[in-house]
Amino acid sequence: MARNTQVPADTTAPPITSILARFVAGHASRGWSDAVDHEAHRTFYNWLGCAIGAAQHEAADAALSAVQMLQPAPQATVLGRTERVDMASAALVNGITSHTFDFDDTHLKTIIHPAGPVASAVLALAEHLGSSGREVLDALVLGIDVACRIGNVMYPDHYDRGWHITGSTGMLGAAAGCARLLKLNEQQTAMALGIAASQPVGLREQFGTMTKPFHPGGAARAGLMSALLASKGFTASPRALEAPRGFVQVASDKRAWHEVTDELGERFEISFNTYKPFACGIVIHPSIDACVQLRDQGVTPDQVKTIELRVHSLVLELTGKKEPKDGLQGKFSVYHGCAVGLIHGRAAEEEFSDAVVNDPAVVALRNKVHATVDDSIAEEAAHVTAVLLDGRRVEVRVEHAIGSMQNPLTDAQLEAKFGSLVAPVLGEAKARAITAACRSLALAPDVRALTALGRP
Amino acid sequence: MARNTQVPADTTAPPITSILARFVAGHASRGWSDAVDHEAHRTFYNWLGCAIGAAQHEAADAALSAVQMLQPAPQATVLGRTERVDMASAALVNGITSHTFDFDDTHLKTIIHPAGPVASAVLALAEHLGSSGREVLDALVLGIDVACRIGNVMYPDHYDRGWHITGSTGMLGAAAGCARLLKLNEQQTAMALGIAASQPVGLREQFGTMTKPFHPGGAARAGLMSALLASKGFTASPRALEAPRGFVQVASDKRAWHEVTDELGERFEISFNTYKPFACGIVIHPSIDACVQLRDQGVTPDQVKTIELRVHSLVLELTGKKEPKDGLQGKFSVYHGCAVGLIHGRAAEEEFSDAVVNDPAVVALRNKVHATVDDSIAEEAAHVTAVLLDGRRVEVRVEHAIGSMQNPLTDAQLEAKFGSLVAPVLGEAKARAITAACRSLALAPDVRALTALGRP
Repeated sequence: MARNTQVPADTTAPPITSILARFVAGHASRGWSDAVDHEAHRTFYNWLGCAIGAAQHEAADAALSAVQMLQPAPQATVLGRTERVDMASAALVNGITSHTFDFDDTHLKTIIHPAGPVASAVLALAEHLGSSGREVLDALVLGIDVACRIGNVMYPDHYDRGWHITGSTGMLGAAAGCARLLKLNEQQTAMALGIAASQPVGLREQFGTMTKPFHPGGAARAGLMSALLASKGFTASPRALEAPRGFVQVASDKRAWHEVTDELGERFEISFNTYKPFACGIVIHPSIDACVQLRDQGVTPDQVKTIELRVHSLVLELTGKKEPKDGLQGKFSVYHGCAVGLIHGRAAEEEFSDAVVNDPAVVALRNKVHATVDDSIAEEAAHVTAVLLDGRRVEVRVEHAIGSMQNPLTDAQLEAKFGSLVAPVLGEAKARAITAACRSLALAPDVRALTALGRP
Repeated sequence: MARNTQVPADTTAPPITSILARFVAGHASRGWSDAVDHEAHRTFYNWLGCAIGAAQHEAADAALSAVQMLQPAPQATVLGRTERVDMASAALVNGITSHTFDFDDTHLKTIIHPAGPVASAVLALAEHLGSSGREVLDALVLGIDVACRIGNVMYPDHYDRGWHITGSTGMLGAAAGCARLLKLNEQQTAMALGIAASQPVGLREQFGTMTKPFHPGGAARAGLMSALLASKGFTASPRALEAPRGFVQVASDKRAWHEVTDELGERFEISFNTYKPFACGIVIHPSIDACVQLRDQGVTPDQVKTIELRVHSLVLELTGKKEPKDGLQGKFSVYHGCAVGLIHGRAAEEEFSDAVVNDPAVVALRNKVHATVDDSIAEEAAHVTAVLLDGRRVEVRVEHAIGSMQNPLTDAQLEAKFGSLVAPVLGEAKARAITAACRSLALAPDVRALTALGRP
């Protein structure tokens, strides 16, 4: 029977399942530069903050209630909560919370949020095994490399079709990371990837519902179980990724196989990971960044007559809500973003609470923001001018917002973000203790010291 | 970004997620004919036999070993074994074993094996809840209707792309069945279907490996968890199936929406379910059937000079192996099928053991089978002539093999099949006791009486 409108089957694909399995099983521990290893620390730390920060969200409550119907054994920590559950369920719930605020990391080449599936699976398994911090970091780097390279093979076609690529490549990254942690050999690792290949998780239609953050959680769970199955001799096709009826060809018309092999073991995709400074869609980030800079230059809300904002048309198309009524609507209002940037100097999850969105001071300043479309300004840029009551004009031009590849968050900024997420849940002392533990993660003999800190 | 070679998005799809949710939540208990209810009993019974029969297979061992790393609570029975595990893991393992011998049911319109995902999820949850037999049968009929109707919407395009349709529609059937068992309302049931929609399980590339039977198991697990999540307030898109970025449009270019609504609640897809009489690919079934009939007519192996077989070319293309060396190769040998049909009068899993394939009497008779291609004979037919040493010719023509829609297995034949699967694992007395329990399933106040019989 014909394949209809799909592109023809490619029978000449290289054996990428085996190639990736050999790489994951055989690459040396810390076989990369200091910069890559530092990025792995940052990726892990940012993911941990996001997961702890959303620990009390209603999505976490609902997921945990469902998991508890299985009467799970207390093998692994639900980050930010007192409950412990079996490691597969911990991978699921931590994967959900890490993506609940849409505040996690982004591999901009594919818009994959790689830590959600990979770190959630790896840490849950590592806690059960008593793995070292070094082993966790190795698994994280290699797992993210697998997920993002497969993403590179298929993006954008795979995403355009409607797959939520984070969960539909994440099961492979999670399987790879867990296979590494379990010290599976090349053959077993290929089986783990193969079993995972049959379990993509994620449709873009789910955006705006709890099933969106379910995707990285479900992928984490599927990948972890795939590695456990492979460790017990369960079999899969050794060509599960590349065969004509394997995952890549079934799920994408773009099949850039070379993305798997190009500089494999030399270039690491985790190097291209970025961290959001603001808890909202990336298109508002330059405007918020500019308003934070105005504040840093001494501009205060009471001095302001108007804020003149010039942005690309896409910004208003996606986030042009003038009078947001609650926190969620606030995330789609560039006006609100500018107001909290100038008043609070930040736009973390707290600034998108119902209370802040309805705060009279915020509402008053929001009404002073006037936006103009100017398509000569790039999508990732913004020009903001504060017109003050005394007649002065203070102008800030942002070409690449903070948090972009060109202007990454500093470690100090990442720590501030972490504190804003973790302190409300676990307190400031624990936030500081976890920060210290994450800095020295590579030296930790057993990650259970860290996961213990992750509980109230 | 463009959708490349895919057909355009369909923005006019009817709200099938809501329509199916209303149907599953609201349709009357036993709201169908006696014939449909009888078919539900047969589907359940056949599935149970297949699951118990493969309980000691190495795929079951591997899956159970992996599951036991989670230290599961003893909530539900692993059929045919002493171990009990949490209900989600039981759904997984029973789904795997039910499909391990490729001996389970087939919805011929879509080649979905519907009981694997649906019954595995439903019985595991029912055992934990202490549901009645009636509730299980209702959940089975409705769950299978959901899976197969979605299959009808997408088949054949979805299958042609490379999806193993049993596991990539089965999560919806399992979610529907479990939602019914949990007595979820229409809204919650829509959420269960929505959460499940993000979790298709199955690639055809896995055929020939343990991950093939993993597909119904994984789908059972995903569907059960989706229903549990929905029962706790977890949300998904209420258009997760039909939206442009929902499951059907992402996974298929064929979108025959009317297949959901045509005679919904009047025609039940379980009516089109069939059961294999022989533990091998369906293309050999007519030839085996003919040889069993020769035996019934008194032909014995020692009388035979040659067996003349006339079949469609496809039969030899797929199953033309003249000298099979082991059980698995035996499944691809029409010659072996004819020999065991005449000698044993059946071709259950046992007849595809290494021992039987290498039995000198079987080998000798196999060598007397001569096959001729005749494309005037239909694919589902076979003409077999036994030429006897005394010169007589005994001819049998099979137009539709036993087990087809036109010539379904009788209840007695189904019972013989069940016995051949279950007696070697649990003994003949238990096989008879389970048969009796399945016959009166509709009257059982608590299915735990039945599941207790399913353990050695």
